[in-house]
Amino acid sequence: MQQQTPQDLLAIINKALEAIQFDKQPNRLYDPIRYTLDMGGKRIRPVMCLMACELFGKEPATAMPAALALEMFHNFTLLHDDIMDKAEKRRNRDCVHIKWNDNVAILSGDAMQIMAMDFLRGLPDGVFRESVAIFNRTAIEVCEGQQYDMDFEAQDHVCEADYLNMIRLKTGVLLAASLKLGALAAGASHEDAQRLYDMGLHIGIAFQLQDDLLDVYGDPATFGKNIGGDITSNKKTYLLIMAQKRADQATCAELEGWLTNTQAKPCEKIAAVTAIYNRTNAKEACQKVMEEHYQLALEHMAAVSAPATRKEPLLRLAASLMNRNN
Amino acid sequence: MQQQTPQDLLAIINKALEAIQFDKQPNRLYDPIRYTLDMGGKRIRPVMCLMACELFGKEPATAMPAALALEMFHNFTLLHDDIMDKAEKRRNRDCVHIKWNDNVAILSGDAMQIMAMDFLRGLPDGVFRESVAIFNRTAIEVCEGQQYDMDFEAQDHVCEADYLNMIRLKTGVLLAASLKLGALAAGASHEDAQRLYDMGLHIGIAFQLQDDLLDVYGDPATFGKNIGGDITSNKKTYLLIMAQKRADQATCAELEGWLTNTQAKPCEKIAAVTAIYNRTNAKEACQKVMEEHYQLALEHMAAVSAPATRKEPLLRLAASLMNRNN
Repeated sequence: MQQQTPQDLLAIINKALEAIQFDKQPNRLYDPIRYTLDMGGKRIRPVMCLMACELFGKEPATAMPAALALEMFHNFTLLHDDIMDKAEKRRNRDCVHIKWNDNVAILSGDAMQIMAMDFLRGLPDGVFRESVAIFNRTAIEVCEGQQYDMDFEAQDHVCEADYLNMIRLKTGVLLAASLKLGALAAGASHEDAQRLYDMGLHIGIAFQLQDDLLDVYGDPATFGKNIGGDITSNKKTYLLIMAQKRADQATCAELEGWLTNTQAKPCEKIAAVTAIYNRTNAKEACQKVMEEHYQLALEHMAAVSAPATRKEPLLRLAASLMNRNN
Repeated sequence: MQQQTPQDLLAIINKALEAIQFDKQPNRLYDPIRYTLDMGGKRIRPVMCLMACELFGKEPATAMPAALALEMFHNFTLLHDDIMDKAEKRRNRDCVHIKWNDNVAILSGDAMQIMAMDFLRGLPDGVFRESVAIFNRTAIEVCEGQQYDMDFEAQDHVCEADYLNMIRLKTGVLLAASLKLGALAAGASHEDAQRLYDMGLHIGIAFQLQDDLLDVYGDPATFGKNIGGDITSNKKTYLLIMAQKRADQATCAELEGWLTNTQAKPCEKIAAVTAIYNRTNAKEACQKVMEEHYQLALEHMAAVSAPATRKEPLLRLAASLMNRNN
């Protein structure tokens, strides 16, 4: 069987998402769900899920119920996170809680979470119960990650280990589950499914570290968001944690000055904090840890019992996620 | 096998709820869930679920996974509804979004919904998949009911059929699913499980109509909430819809005057609107429809293939729900 390109898989996924019927009553429950799914996005989770299924020689359609569940769940988290973060825009469109209101966003998010779980019923009997267990545990962990992320906002200091644990939960486990669910749907052994889980986990952590880097060092032409948004909002990213850890006393005080300065012009603050990141080699520290997780991901993939040629598409996707510009 | 009393079943359910481990990190995700479950309540849904299981001669523990899923889901809806309704108190305690904040309430509610669905994994293989399907469809319908309820707030007029459909979704289907899931767990036939579903649906509608009546005509000493809350908040209850339908032109104008009067003292408004309800026989109209749904519930129960003596506990519970004072 010829493996499909990520672009082919993306097209299959988008077609399946478009086929979901949302012209139902009440409108204010279902319209925001259609609106959210129509925003598009990279659909990384369902693409990875279908690729993991193909890795074991099965038609990607076998894992489609899991792929749709993952994408619907991910979109639900974006919808609720945007309320909690008071974000106004996503992919250049108004967030649901802005276009409608908070109540509509809460409730249509709740409905998306139910729909996500309901897609799993499309999986074959042999893997249904285990897939539900993996999906639910992952979903709870994503909630834990979001709560830690919010807790960190109110903390003066976040240590490296706590930050890495937060991004493991908030981003890593869902990518990990995407690969594992795809592998299980294809009838892979539990050992191989777990290796793919571990691969996805480290790819997810590396992916989030890349996000932290792009926010500061990305190309404004391709990044899609304003460069330096994390700096102006004092977000405790891996770069900030590294800079705080590595800076001498004077630089620490300078950094603290920028963090507590509410009068600073955004562009000045971004330039100054970026200069501190450069001076303390925070960028290199972040790249190093990212690379370590990427290598761990490759090691787990190497241990999977499947022909090397079959692994190529997933390995190419993983590499592209490490070298992305948006 | 001796059937247990609702009090016995309530004790078993509370013990099972207390046994769930919530001493986990992050605290701000798990503490609000423990707090919500510890508020107590009548636990009508899990009690009905276990009773439906016993009706078919099975140990109530067989249906416990479904019972816990139902109670956890119900508590999740209360938590999110309280944010949407800006309610401050529930069972005389601060709501989660008051005690913590909106974000904590949104996210711990999300986690409760996942946990609710995860309890279903405790069901036996033979009924797991169907139970998940029933549970998910019901959960979506409850969201639809909540959205209709919010939509009605912004509407000038709500017709009787739309109101009954809203309470069917918001209250009826979860009681219906409670009985059906309990019956299926006990190995009941699909016909009998559906009869119990229909019984629960009509009990649920009658239950909600009783709620509307108690809010106006309940005994302040036992009701638990302030009498007339629906009137002061202009809530479109069945009583209001009936009064608007049955009133002559002058009374309609008088009623409209009270609905648009933002200066009226609550006690005066409650007394005046209650007088209109009395004059238009809205109370009797509500009692009549409630009684009709109760009778339909009894008819569905009568058709269930189980010994009459086994049906007695559920019939007594249904009767007590129609004659409650809180």
